[in-house]
Amino acid sequence: MAQESQVAPRYLSGDKPALREFLDKFDVFLFDCDGVLWSGDHLFPGTVETLELLRKNGVSRNAMSVQQKLTNGLGKQVVFVTNNSTKSRADYRKKLEGLGIPSTVEEIFSSSYSASIYISRILQLPENKRKVYVIGETGIEQELQSENVQFIGGTDPAYRRDITPEDYKKIAAGDESLLDPEVGVVLVGLDFHFNYLKMALAYHYVKRGAVFLATNIDSTLPNSGTLFPGAGSMSAPLIMMLNQEPVALGKPSQAMMDSVEGKFKFDRSRTCMVGDRVNTDIRFGLEGKLGGTLGVLTGVSSKEEFLTGDVRPHAYLDKLSDLLGSE
Amino acid sequence: MAQESQVAPRYLSGDKPALREFLDKFDVFLFDCDGVLWSGDHLFPGTVETLELLRKNGVSRNAMSVQQKLTNGLGKQVVFVTNNSTKSRADYRKKLEGLGIPSTVEEIFSSSYSASIYISRILQLPENKRKVYVIGETGIEQELQSENVQFIGGTDPAYRRDITPEDYKKIAAGDESLLDPEVGVVLVGLDFHFNYLKMALAYHYVKRGAVFLATNIDSTLPNSGTLFPGAGSMSAPLIMMLNQEPVALGKPSQAMMDSVEGKFKFDRSRTCMVGDRVNTDIRFGLEGKLGGTLGVLTGVSSKEEFLTGDVRPHAYLDKLSDLLGSE
Repeated sequence: MAQESQVAPRYLSGDKPALREFLDKFDVFLFDCDGVLWSGDHLFPGTVETLELLRKNGVSRNAMSVQQKLTNGLGKQVVFVTNNSTKSRADYRKKLEGLGIPSTVEEIFSSSYSASIYISRILQLPENKRKVYVIGETGIEQELQSENVQFIGGTDPAYRRDITPEDYKKIAAGDESLLDPEVGVVLVGLDFHFNYLKMALAYHYVKRGAVFLATNIDSTLPNSGTLFPGAGSMSAPLIMMLNQEPVALGKPSQAMMDSVEGKFKFDRSRTCMVGDRVNTDIRFGLEGKLGGTLGVLTGVSSKEEFLTGDVRPHAYLDKLSDLLGSE
Repeated sequence: MAQESQVAPRYLSGDKPALREFLDKFDVFLFDCDGVLWSGDHLFPGTVETLELLRKNGVSRNAMSVQQKLTNGLGKQVVFVTNNSTKSRADYRKKLEGLGIPSTVEEIFSSSYSASIYISRILQLPENKRKVYVIGETGIEQELQSENVQFIGGTDPAYRRDITPEDYKKIAAGDESLLDPEVGVVLVGLDFHFNYLKMALAYHYVKRGAVFLATNIDSTLPNSGTLFPGAGSMSAPLIMMLNQEPVALGKPSQAMMDSVEGKFKFDRSRTCMVGDRVNTDIRFGLEGKLGGTLGVLTGVSSKEEFLTGDVRPHAYLDKLSDLLGSE
């Protein structure tokens, strides 16, 4: 599956020349967030300063004096790439702000936004099949609205109820009061109000020809220091019933990389993915043939995984703020 | 996986000598129900007469005249083996009766009963870990009660609600008001009131050491002539989150065959499984090394599957009532 990086990753923490050399190779840094910039509600020390160093002013590093670098930053494009589908980009910017990280909506790329772009700009849907049946929360709805995509389901209270004997008959008969004939896409994200009726409807829409999409297929979601069901837990029953995988729009899916590239028009060879998880973040960068991948040891994957796993970053750090050691 | 029956299955419909020879080989017939005896709400013609022919009076066939056979039946033990976990055996008998099939509770073997027997008689649980956390409906609860197994969850309305911010913290902290320390088993069956909270609790119980059981893992459930989410759809998210398969107590799991044998003390070499689905019913019989398997063409699997599939019955009929052609 993953394109393997066979060379042992380079350890950069505390090695100023190696850090400088590494940073000079890239114009764009894609950041995973939880486990890299913060953990749960805890912002890692130095996160804000590191981001400031990387991004300020858009001035190329070579043209700057050391003083300018410290004052103006390195002029890199910074993108926050998150699989969180329950929040819109605007919600996510508020979350970053709440943690003390200045950012703009334009710097944020979420799986719900990725899915919305995929539906509106990449999928070629017939005119009478452009509605989306949503399993998910408000973040997905907001991003679909931002791309002028019509949808049903989602947070609509009409779907938050038990299935009835009438429903079985109506669904079997393809009754339009329950199965909208204009639905051409089923989009499944994390839904805290998931239920039997929603599952049954999603199954029948796909059986009737709708495209099966998932914002992301992470099986778990971190919360309060432990794990809870993730968006993948809403897709899992459908995958089993349909014997079909969804097109997933979150990391490590390359559909997300295509969407990010479509928006930021970057040069992949001068782009680096930064993350804590080999099987999502690092794989995402490697399969996307980015110029670099940078692992950090403040999240899920261990040093041993970085050094001897099937999927290895090009370089790694103890923590993100070790990048400050480049100056 | 399945023990393959390499020989082409014998077609018995209309072949009186072959039918007699086949029936004579067995003392016990295990019946799948939907697709064999009926379809949905429609009882197949001749079902009642066929069952009467097989089972009456317990007199051995060889000792009877033709007249006696027609009057008294062949003296076979008949067992209805169903993966339906939402009904107790008593409920299921009522369903059979409603369809016009006389039966006794003792002739019925459901996956919820199978699971209850497995928990009470086969699992060796420590004394303080004997409670079962149930995802499922009343059929499971009734069968657990019949085996004096304590349980929580199930149809308890306290679990039919949204997850709250408090719940995350309590679950993370292992708060006993949400995570009962005496739970040693998670039993997952079909639950029409499945939700995020139930999923999260089941995940955490298994992570804390509970045995992960499923009444059955059928991904779909027939209703109104089409398919809806089955019990497997409730296990699928947990399998994905835990990266662990449950012990399944329904067909084709041999845990169910062991339970059936434990109850009926039959000779496997003189037992025949009758069903319409190769991957559950026929596999169940083959892996259980029964003397025979009999496919019928009134359900899911096709003649082509019977003749050329990986899992093939020993013999097959167009319809169950073709057994009446033996007399």
